[in-house]
Amino acid sequence: MDEFELIKKYFSPLEKLDNSTIVRNGDDAAVISVPEWKSIALSVDTLVEGIHFLPDTKPEVIGFRSAAVNLSDMAAMGAQPCYGLLSLVIPDNDEAWLRNFSLGLGECLDEYNCSLIGGDTARGPLAISLTMVGHVSGPPLTRAGAKIGDTILVSGTLGDASGALGILNKTPLDAEEKFLVERYERPLARISLSINLLGIANSAIDISDGLLADAGHIAAASDVGIDLLASSIPISPSLSSVYTEKEALEFALSGGDDYELMYTVPQDALVEAYAMAATEGIKLTKIGMVTEGSHVRCLSGENEDIILKTKGYKHF
Amino acid sequence: MDEFELIKKYFSPLEKLDNSTIVRNGDDAAVISVPEWKSIALSVDTLVEGIHFLPDTKPEVIGFRSAAVNLSDMAAMGAQPCYGLLSLVIPDNDEAWLRNFSLGLGECLDEYNCSLIGGDTARGPLAISLTMVGHVSGPPLTRAGAKIGDTILVSGTLGDASGALGILNKTPLDAEEKFLVERYERPLARISLSINLLGIANSAIDISDGLLADAGHIAAASDVGIDLLASSIPISPSLSSVYTEKEALEFALSGGDDYELMYTVPQDALVEAYAMAATEGIKLTKIGMVTEGSHVRCLSGENEDIILKTKGYKHF
Repeated sequence: MDEFELIKKYFSPLEKLDNSTIVRNGDDAAVISVPEWKSIALSVDTLVEGIHFLPDTKPEVIGFRSAAVNLSDMAAMGAQPCYGLLSLVIPDNDEAWLRNFSLGLGECLDEYNCSLIGGDTARGPLAISLTMVGHVSGPPLTRAGAKIGDTILVSGTLGDASGALGILNKTPLDAEEKFLVERYERPLARISLSINLLGIANSAIDISDGLLADAGHIAAASDVGIDLLASSIPISPSLSSVYTEKEALEFALSGGDDYELMYTVPQDALVEAYAMAATEGIKLTKIGMVTEGSHVRCLSGENEDIILKTKGYKHF
Repeated sequence: MDEFELIKKYFSPLEKLDNSTIVRNGDDAAVISVPEWKSIALSVDTLVEGIHFLPDTKPEVIGFRSAAVNLSDMAAMGAQPCYGLLSLVIPDNDEAWLRNFSLGLGECLDEYNCSLIGGDTARGPLAISLTMVGHVSGPPLTRAGAKIGDTILVSGTLGDASGALGILNKTPLDAEEKFLVERYERPLARISLSINLLGIANSAIDISDGLLADAGHIAAASDVGIDLLASSIPISPSLSSVYTEKEALEFALSGGDDYELMYTVPQDALVEAYAMAATEGIKLTKIGMVTEGSHVRCLSGENEDIILKTKGYKHF
């Protein structure tokens, strides 16, 4: 099967046909109408085998996560994602792999009503690069908006996906382990929560490099310090049951695969933020405060300062 | 130097700062304003080392061509390109390579006043994936609009870049060879010509897979036949001087690296099309007609039919 047949069979079904599509996938470029948009959000994320996932990762998991990591970037801006363009570099034409990859990708895109409108394939070492296009109503959430005095909130629980990495191939998995693996394999992007927090939160970032590293990105972009309280960081019962307290905290502080969101919210908007999250059925947890300075500091429960200079996840 | 420093040093300068940029490169996603756009065009193209370019290709050439092949897709829609997002997978942190790659990429993006607003880098076997965003005023040029009776026009000359492939590393090059190599290393996207042909041409495609293959794409998408006349296909004096007539024609029919455009234009709009091209200083040449059928046929000068069933360039 050649490139054109391959695309048609597995990826054309991921294109949603609606009135906004002027020129469909398969022409030189896709063209879509943007009648009411004031601004568009654009992001690209690339997953490389051996770097972002292990060679034996299930193709449906690679597909699902390819979309999820990108959608999480959209969430971090308060953007409504709409369209994806896929660049797929694959070593061979393994039809079973492609079918399962496209199923995972499609499942995640479907979850957020996104349409795959374009792409390109090439032969080479496995790498997946997805570009997402969304739109934002009003000023977007950025990394640069945090203000001294803001409360730092995170969605959901942290560290679960990192806790899953060591047990992905274990069989059988007990219920707690299954929860962790699910959190790795099918991360949720906090799209609607973030859209609801537009105008409420001062800043946002998706936790893709780990809480400490991403708090460092907020600190640097906003020119503020970040004080976190270790004991307040939300850890799931599953992570606590599978790992020691110290291990669980380490995963929560440094793991980046949950794709939860960190927001900073001014005092007078906190009640509204909690209420918005409650309507979404998502727990927002206060984990710290934005302070003067340029540090990221995590205080342990015993008033013992743990100073953590963060430099971000090193891609090189 | 880590990913963040690397991006800042070599790729941040490729972002043009203007009023349309709401959130700059470096946040989770870029956000741009689109106040007057009715529709946006989106395309992605991926270049993989060993497939799309040889391992010893100069990084500035890889950079320039990464943008040019994408811009050519924009041209094929009649779109005005504006923004690029770069996914760069590189084996190591070779600063000289990155500097020269970014110079070539920047030179091409500058030529068309495009801004690099986002990206991602990862470590792995060299692959470059660029997503371009543009906008279209009115109905775009597509592959599906060709009508029986349309005249088939191509811009510039064909086959030059293919003719260059065999002499890229030759030294010294004579003037004719230099011309061919320049055509390969710095292909021009026919942006303004295509924008001027909106509402005049019925269909367009960029010749990236070779004239016969791309004519086949038009035939398939428009449900028409394509008759080409071999003797009318524009061959540059340089290609003719370096290669035999037969070799030159083969390059022109099957080579895809020139990124010239093929248009189909109805009879009553031909004069206007030629005039538009003349104002751009570009030669449009009539090379055939759109007919009934589903074939692509290239007639030689001696009335001898050469039937060419085209299946497109095989990516796999």
